Parts: sequence; structure tokens; C-alpha cells
Amino acid sequence: MVDLVIIGAGPAGITASVYAARKKMDFLVITRDIGGQAALSGDVENYTGYQFITGPELAEKFEEHMRKYKIKLKEDEEVINLEKINDEILIKTNQEDYKTKTVIIASGKRSKELGISGEKEFKNKGLTYCATCDAPLFAGKEVAVIGGGNSALDAVLQLLKIAKKIYLINNRLTLAGDLIMQEKIKQSEIVKIFNDAQIKEIFGDKMVNGIKIKKQNKEEILPVQGIFVEIGLIPNSEFIKYINKNKQGEIIVNCYNETNLPGIFAAGDVTNVPEKQIIIAAGEGAKAALGAFKYLARV
Amino acid sequence: MVDLVIIGAGPAGITASVYAARKKMDFLVITRDIGGQAALSGDVENYTGYQFITGPELAEKFEEHMRKYKIKLKEDEEVINLEKINDEILIKTNQEDYKTKTVIIASGKRSKELGISGEKEFKNKGLTYCATCDAPLFAGKEVAVIGGGNSALDAVLQLLKIAKKIYLINNRLTLAGDLIMQEKIKQSEIVKIFNDAQIKEIFGDKMVNGIKIKKQNKEEILPVQGIFVEIGLIPNSEFIKYINKNKQGEIIVNCYNETNLPGIFAAGDVTNVPEKQIIIAAGEGAKAALGAFKYLARV
Repeated sequence: MVDLVIIGAGPAGITASVYAARKKMDFLVITRDIGGQAALSGDVENYTGYQFITGPELAEKFEEHMRKYKIKLKEDEEVINLEKINDEILIKTNQEDYKTKTVIIASGKRSKELGISGEKEFKNKGLTYCATCDAPLFAGKEVAVIGGGNSALDAVLQLLKIAKKIYLINNRLTLAGDLIMQEKIKQSEIVKIFNDAQIKEIFGDKMVNGIKIKKQNKEEILPVQGIFVEIGLIPNSEFIKYINKNKQGEIIVNCYNETNLPGIFAAGDVTNVPEKQIIIAAGEGAKAALGAFKYLARV
Repeated sequence: MVDLVIIGAGPAGITASVYAARKKMDFLVITRDIGGQAALSGDVENYTGYQFITGPELAEKFEEHMRKYKIKLKEDEEVINLEKINDEILIKTNQEDYKTKTVIIASGKRSKELGISGEKEFKNKGLTYCATCDAPLFAGKEVAVIGGGNSALDAVLQLLKIAKKIYLINNRLTLAGDLIMQEKIKQSEIVKIFNDAQIKEIFGDKMVNGIKIKKQNKEEILPVQGIFVEIGLIPNSEFIKYINKNKQGEIIVNCYNETNLPGIFAAGDVTNVPEKQIIIAAGEGAKAALGAFKYLARV
């Protein structure tokens, strides 16, 4: 039985672990990967204190910061069930069972899928959910980016100096991402923006070679060899059933990062806190760790 | 009439300004100083991404980050009144009047005073509220640090290699700061900790030369040439009267950094959000700026 288990090691989980370590708590971190969505981000210019850093670089600094403390880190391990029975929180992973007094769920989000014909077939055969990981594979090629928020714009920016032609397929009337990113994109001659448009189908042979889009009842075929899906994220909250979530599946927390279950805290992208931002997730992780520390002092 | 005024340029205000700049908002920052309490901190080891940085260094990185964007910065300017009349927010400083649609109050906190005999007389004559600023002035001297939280422990740590003897006067039964800091302090032979003790009086000639403390009904005189007061902070919220505050004077915000007045947001140490931490204040500043941006899109 430990004092605290932190699930996830993105910006929220890592910050929580730094705070827990400095409070000398008896805790462990269980995580599938390190860095979370931050590690998959392109350029980060809004993490205060770093004017410019890439997502993977920032994630690496986070990881080093966490590893400075001798914490018990269970890597490549996935939580499959979490429940609270009386005063014990029971965690089952794909490898082991754990008991803890408190938990911080900082399991983040994962990419949403399109749910259209060809998506499963061409995954990793031209279709990707991670521009940071895969953009370099599409040098000199024609690609489509699906989405209109910051993640989609970030993908376009990463592709600007790599791809030959970029189609941005946005299903809203206007782009939603930061204006400063929109301006950079609009200045480029290789980007063609389709607003109010949907992707309907993905074609290919062994690899992707085209998509069908629909804009105002008109269908069009675009010859692309790459598809970057950036249409949003889904919270990794399936492993806990009996807890208050909103209809998106985000775990509902109050301003103290408490869930409706005493001793169970949540922080970062997996929660209903608005805005998926690294600096916000980090701050939430700190609050959750300090909250768990105070909770243990009371019980 | 601008879209947004940010009051204060500590971690919350600076992060809000970075986010507002990236959203291309028409805004200005009014502030008495830059860096806030972060600039007065000693060593910072819990700002995720920087394993170790001094408070002034981190504040400088924040300032550079903010100045990367060409923002309208009103420095050395103090807000003396803020009120909302109909849909306009009117701000009066010691220099000018401003009108804005939204405001983010990120004016932080200032040091609490002891309220005892000799305090006003010996301020800056041996008595200080800023260890980071003044510790180096007390090389080889005997000093007292008043308080028991992280700020007091931080002051002791800063003085460890400078002072000859450090008395830590804590009015609680045990220290409240991080255990990792407590351990470092307890290992030192020059620190003497008085728990459950109060400082009653400050003596001196031109400069401080002693204090009277009381512990369990026993009074004692300690011969010190320096006094570092670290007993807490007061929110800088006096300039706004008609807004919901708690009894400490902190502005009450919800999880979206909204106050009870539409268009008026608050972030960081001036609010009721628990834990005065740089990473938390920064996250709150980002949330407030994105909140103000969305508010303007709706009205």
C-alpha cells in the first residue's frame, strides 16, 4: 500500500511527481509513455520561460526533471481498472496489481479517429495521427491535414518546409487555431484551405494515394500521399467506471483537482479543465499533488 | 478602449500576456514591477522543465518571453481603482485612466508585516521582507528568520552559506514547508529552530541588534543583526471594491478564472486558488487569457 499512485507521465503527471517527490511522499508513477501529448507537439512557443522549444525537447526536459528524484517509475505499463473499495484504491494494470491511499489520474488524451472508409486500412500506410513523429516521411509529397484547431495548424506548420502541397480540410466555417499560426499558414503558397469541408473517403493501393472530400454538396478528389488526422482528442478515462465524467468522457474535477471520490484526484488533459495546454496541465499537476499531500495529512 | 488589460507581470500576468499576444488581442499590461514574487524567490526547483534555476533568473526568462511580442507595457504604474460601469471596465492608475472590455487581475500578493514594536523603525535597517534581495548583506552575522512555511525555509537555505547563525522562529508546532527543505536545514549546525514561538519585539540602536521571543510563556532575547520576515502574503486586491473576495482579501474565481463580474478575470496569487506556486500561477494566467479571448468572441 503506497500513499499515492500517479497515472500518466505527461506534463501533469510529471509535475505532480516532482511535487510529490519534494514532499517526500511514498508514491509510484504508472505510465504507458513519457511526455504525453507534449512529446508529440511540434514547436512550443507558449510554455512560459521557454520562448521557443520543440515538443520533444520540452518533454525530455520534463523527463530529466522527474528522473532527478529517485522515483518508482513503472513504464510501458497500462492501467486497465481502477476502483475504490472502502478506503483502498485498487489499481490493476496489464502487469500487476497495486493498492494506494490516493491517486492522481493524469492519463491524458489520445487522438480521435475519423471513422471513415479506408482509415483503418491505411493507418501507418500514409495515414497518421502524429505530425511531429511522421511529417519528415512526406518530403516532397502532397498531403492533407484534417482539422482546424491548433493541432491541425501545428501539423501544417511542421509540414510547410517538407511537403510539396498541403490541403487543410476544416469542417468548420473558419479556422479555430491561434491567429498567429493562421497568418503564417495563409502566407504560404503551398497551402490550400478548404473550410466547411468534410473528408469522406480514403483511397490507395498499398499506400494512400487520394482522398474524397465534400464541400457544399460538391465532392472532389485530392491526390495525396499523406493524411494527418488532427480532429481532436479522447480522454484516456475508460479504466475508471464509477466516477463523475462529462459527456466527452473527461473526469470532472473541482478547482482543487478533486473528483467526486475522496482521495482520487485528476489533472491535465483527462479532466474537464478547459484548454489543452502544456503550462495549464503542469499547473494542474502541481495542484493535484499538493491536494493529495494535504488529503493524506487529514485522513 | 482596448480589448483587454492585464494588471500585473508576475508568472500569471506574463503568461496571460504571452497567450493574449499569440491570440493577437489588442491589450496592454499595467504593472508596478516585473516578475512578481518569482523575482524575489531564491532557488526554484519545481518549475517543471527547469531542474534548477534561481527566482530572478526565471523571472528574467519570463520577462524576455513576454518582450518577444511587441506588447504595450505600462511599467512602474500602479492601479488605484478599477470598476465596471455597464459594459465598460474603467481603470485608474497613479498616472492615467484606461477603458477596457475585459481585464485579468494578476496583481499578486505582498509580504505580511509582523505588527510589533520596532518593525516600522527598523525596516531596511536590519529588518527585511526579501531574503533573495538582502541575504548577501548579512555575511558573517547572526540573523532570525520569522515563519515556518516554504518562504521561511527558502530564506534559511539562502542564508546557510552566508550567515554565522540562523534562528528560525516558527509560531506553529512544526514546520510547514517542504520536507526536502526541512531536511537540508536540520542537517545544518548553524540553524536553531524555535517551534511554537512568537517574536514579540525588535531592538536596536541605529540598526537591529536583537529580538525578544516568547516560547511556552518563557521570554528570551536573541542577539541578531538581521531579521527576515516570511510570515505570509497579502493579496494586492484593494483597488477593486465591488467584487467577491474571501476573508483573506483574495479574489474569488471559478475554475475558468472568472470572477463574479462578467469580463473581469483573475489569476495567480491574488486569487483564492490554493498554493502559491510559480507553475500554478502560470497555468492560471494561460486559462484566464484564453477565457478573456472566448468572452470577447461571445459579446
